[in-house]
Amino acid sequence: MKMKILEIDVKDKTSTQLDVPEKYKYLGGRGLTSTVVSAEVDPACHPLNEKNMLVIAPGLFAGSVLSSANRLSAGAKSPLTGGIKEANSGGLAAYRLGRLGIKAIKIKGKGKGEFESAGIKISSSGVSFEDLSFIKGMTTYEAAKRLLERYGNKCAFLVIGPAGEIRLPTACINVGDTEGEPCRNLGRGGLGAVMGSKGIKAIIIDDQGLKSPWKENDKVKQVIKKFARALKEHPVTGEKFAKYGTVMTLLNVNSLGGLPTRNFTQGTFEDAEKIGAESLREKIANRGGMTAHSCMPGCVIQCSNKYVKKNGSPLVGSLDFETVCLLGANIGISDLDQIATLNRLCNDYGVDTMETGVTLGVMAEAGIFEYGNYKKIKGIVDGLGTGTPIGRILGSGAAVAGKVFGVERVPVVKDQGMAAYDPRAIKGMGITYSMSPMGADHTAGNAITLAVDHLDPEAQIKPVRELHINTMVLDTLGICIFTGRVTLGNTDIVEDIIEAFFDHRITFEELQKIAEENLKCEREFNRRAGISADRLPQFMLEEQLPPNNTVYDIDMKELESFYD
Amino acid sequence: MKMKILEIDVKDKTSTQLDVPEKYKYLGGRGLTSTVVSAEVDPACHPLNEKNMLVIAPGLFAGSVLSSANRLSAGAKSPLTGGIKEANSGGLAAYRLGRLGIKAIKIKGKGKGEFESAGIKISSSGVSFEDLSFIKGMTTYEAAKRLLERYGNKCAFLVIGPAGEIRLPTACINVGDTEGEPCRNLGRGGLGAVMGSKGIKAIIIDDQGLKSPWKENDKVKQVIKKFARALKEHPVTGEKFAKYGTVMTLLNVNSLGGLPTRNFTQGTFEDAEKIGAESLREKIANRGGMTAHSCMPGCVIQCSNKYVKKNGSPLVGSLDFETVCLLGANIGISDLDQIATLNRLCNDYGVDTMETGVTLGVMAEAGIFEYGNYKKIKGIVDGLGTGTPIGRILGSGAAVAGKVFGVERVPVVKDQGMAAYDPRAIKGMGITYSMSPMGADHTAGNAITLAVDHLDPEAQIKPVRELHINTMVLDTLGICIFTGRVTLGNTDIVEDIIEAFFDHRITFEELQKIAEENLKCEREFNRRAGISADRLPQFMLEEQLPPNNTVYDIDMKELESFYD
Repeated sequence: MKMKILEIDVKDKTSTQLDVPEKYKYLGGRGLTSTVVSAEVDPACHPLNEKNMLVIAPGLFAGSVLSSANRLSAGAKSPLTGGIKEANSGGLAAYRLGRLGIKAIKIKGKGKGEFESAGIKISSSGVSFEDLSFIKGMTTYEAAKRLLERYGNKCAFLVIGPAGEIRLPTACINVGDTEGEPCRNLGRGGLGAVMGSKGIKAIIIDDQGLKSPWKENDKVKQVIKKFARALKEHPVTGEKFAKYGTVMTLLNVNSLGGLPTRNFTQGTFEDAEKIGAESLREKIANRGGMTAHSCMPGCVIQCSNKYVKKNGSPLVGSLDFETVCLLGANIGISDLDQIATLNRLCNDYGVDTMETGVTLGVMAEAGIFEYGNYKKIKGIVDGLGTGTPIGRILGSGAAVAGKVFGVERVPVVKDQGMAAYDPRAIKGMGITYSMSPMGADHTAGNAITLAVDHLDPEAQIKPVRELHINTMVLDTLGICIFTGRVTLGNTDIVEDIIEAFFDHRITFEELQKIAEENLKCEREFNRRAGISADRLPQFMLEEQLPPNNTVYDIDMKELESFYD
Repeated sequence: MKMKILEIDVKDKTSTQLDVPEKYKYLGGRGLTSTVVSAEVDPACHPLNEKNMLVIAPGLFAGSVLSSANRLSAGAKSPLTGGIKEANSGGLAAYRLGRLGIKAIKIKGKGKGEFESAGIKISSSGVSFEDLSFIKGMTTYEAAKRLLERYGNKCAFLVIGPAGEIRLPTACINVGDTEGEPCRNLGRGGLGAVMGSKGIKAIIIDDQGLKSPWKENDKVKQVIKKFARALKEHPVTGEKFAKYGTVMTLLNVNSLGGLPTRNFTQGTFEDAEKIGAESLREKIANRGGMTAHSCMPGCVIQCSNKYVKKNGSPLVGSLDFETVCLLGANIGISDLDQIATLNRLCNDYGVDTMETGVTLGVMAEAGIFEYGNYKKIKGIVDGLGTGTPIGRILGSGAAVAGKVFGVERVPVVKDQGMAAYDPRAIKGMGITYSMSPMGADHTAGNAITLAVDHLDPEAQIKPVRELHINTMVLDTLGICIFTGRVTLGNTDIVEDIIEAFFDHRITFEELQKIAEENLKCEREFNRRAGISADRLPQFMLEEQLPPNNTVYDIDMKELESFYD
């Protein structure tokens, strides 16, 4: 299949179909978005300026039913961190884009004057600009419903909520899942604000009338089966994820003493069981929700779920570990229904649940509300939708809230809130937070998966460095990092997949070299943008985290050569 | 006189009297605060942490009546920029500290638990900790009145307002002037929040019972007279400043097309005459205020004033150029009474008037209120006192407001709002804003004073670089930069002053070398703090400023060697 890159200029409402440069051939996902952003975005530009570019790229094998391979990446200069950003998600969009033969979409420019509520529709007949004023200002669930009514319920879509429209730095881009729920989020770093700044409310992707663009020869069919089998055979990707979802991590992290609780003051939550995987599974199962669900077509891992209300009606899909911890333990909430409602609200207004949880933690520390005061919390979260001053502060992220409320204990790196692993107990994660060009983003090197003593400062640097590179390999192929347990233990399978799809074998070592280059190029973007503080906040270096009573004590000197 | 350094630990409520290290002998003001902050503050610490240190240092000749030499500097890691910060002001405190033989005060630690409203009293009998709970939460004018009632109206004092107590990043430290009005502000960079984080509401300085510590020999007396005469003989320092105050600059900057108007969208203000020097002088004179006033003991320049209400009662002293422009033209206000009232409110709540004006401009651009809507503006400013969400956003500065409200045109460098000179028309000022370790702070190199074509990008770098060094020389001596017209044209007089006071002659070239070292050391602090973006915001490089229709076009490449 001949792939193409779409270049869309929102200012002039033009679109151009570009050939894929040879050097981009084996780049997908983050590997491609970061390469394009680095090459084409001025690191000194304002993130909301027309010079910023929103780059959307599915994985290399998107459009096929290869398991876990229909990830969608988006990249830009981040309104939250001021550095380079990539976020990726499941959902239906990458699959549809793959079937349309679209390697990447580069969105430049900016709508004129008022927010235009424009839409971009991509189909086999090309790109069209749509007037979406009928969903202007609308929350994402309502907007999604209306979009599917108008464009057909087989369409994939990306949509932003009110938070993206008012350009809040934590706004996400919601991607519709296979049922059209806008719950798969390109969550971190405010990419929804970049989309909002360009005046785009939604992108609709319609692949009707097309057959799969992938040659469905035996080699491809075989490798798809082989990969699915390998994933199914592994106890985690084959069973645990489908049974418990990502929340299976919660009690583990809690037992390691690294579960962020009450703004990272404790590493264990006394009510961890109540929000743990068994409780979640039981609740969903008893109420008739879905405990296992594929977040993207073809995925056999099925870590996703559909959480429902007591009466069985849908509330939010999917309730995941990061959200359960950060909108739960971290703000003193131990009721899954409350957490799920906050999650739904964040989805609806279109903000990153993780950054929201971290920011609420900072606000609780400032005394704006008491930990666990759900009613007050919900009131503030609702302000995200209406743009109240307190809602806007919340929507600007933890670093801003720390400044606004004079709080010293602010768990951010490069102005991005930390994920649900306290780096004083999961020390490798501290390296990821501090050294990743993405800020405190666990997905750049999810050190909890490493078979190391997480408390030992000596044991982390080498494996985490390797993990950063291997994660970038997966992110460049656009294959879910949850496959790591299989793909990184058996790298042949990665080479086999590439060979089957592209008639060309690339060794894993070559992929790692490409990945290293991409990491360096992300880092260089940040350097030119003026983002240089590769370190954790001071309090984590000094304040002991119970119950291990450890501080973060990775030798910063040794990290200086992390990128060499 | 044997000078001493006071080291005060707020945590333990202890104070130590230290000898002055030989290497600090000829450092005062910013030269000393920046040296101490660089040497003793961890650049990675949180600005509100106990590890941050508030360093207060009078000028080298403080305590004498040498004209323009009783400046007071304060330094710390800035809650606003995250980098090193120094702010200086007039007022009575430096004079009293000089008479007490105090070279510097280093305040470490942090009060325990709740904000303590502690006070530090410094007198000839040493340091005592005072319970100031009777002025807790109080605005500065009321607090100042109570302080003078309790400690005697000859005392000098530093006090913070509610903004400093709640640690807003734009909080200033108010220094009482010779009449006890808390209107001389250590304004920029949030040093009031550092003081607030330490639990200190006020510092009282009482030099009663002491004679001048300076040997009043003929040599000293002569040089004091000689310097006063030289200042009086210059048309600007001898006459214009006293007649018109700093506002004399306003119509000049306006005629150069560089007067920030309506969030830096225009370089001229149609109502400039209304807020210009003649209008101000007339108003003050007709109402019986003071058109000329010394901001510190001994100063013959008398650029300060006391603005009064229509009925002649005091409103604010002193109404100065930066404030008149940024709380006037920049937010579309052309009524001096309104500007003076906003100035008074900023003083009273204890925030930097400049940052407040720049932030309000960003808010107006965001549509929070219409330019010139005094009533709405006043309502938001009042939120600084009560800590409303919108007031807190305002008090967090322009960079934060830009994030919170999704504004792209945010005139800041290193997260600090620009002074009242648009760098597209006063291009040398753009070099100061971008290259100074202080952020967009005109006082680090006030390029408007240079005899160059301000629009010519080629004409700026060399003279501005020299100006940065010479400004640091004056800041290290603690002599007001307004003396520059005399001291920098006739450097002998600077050498004479040092020789008379210290029985030791230092050449101006030697002073420049020390200054260069200090600048490098400030810059190195920032590098270690992770503050590295030496550049103006994107819009100033691209958006033409009427009426000159020029952009900021200084060659960034050439600036790379600015510090070599």
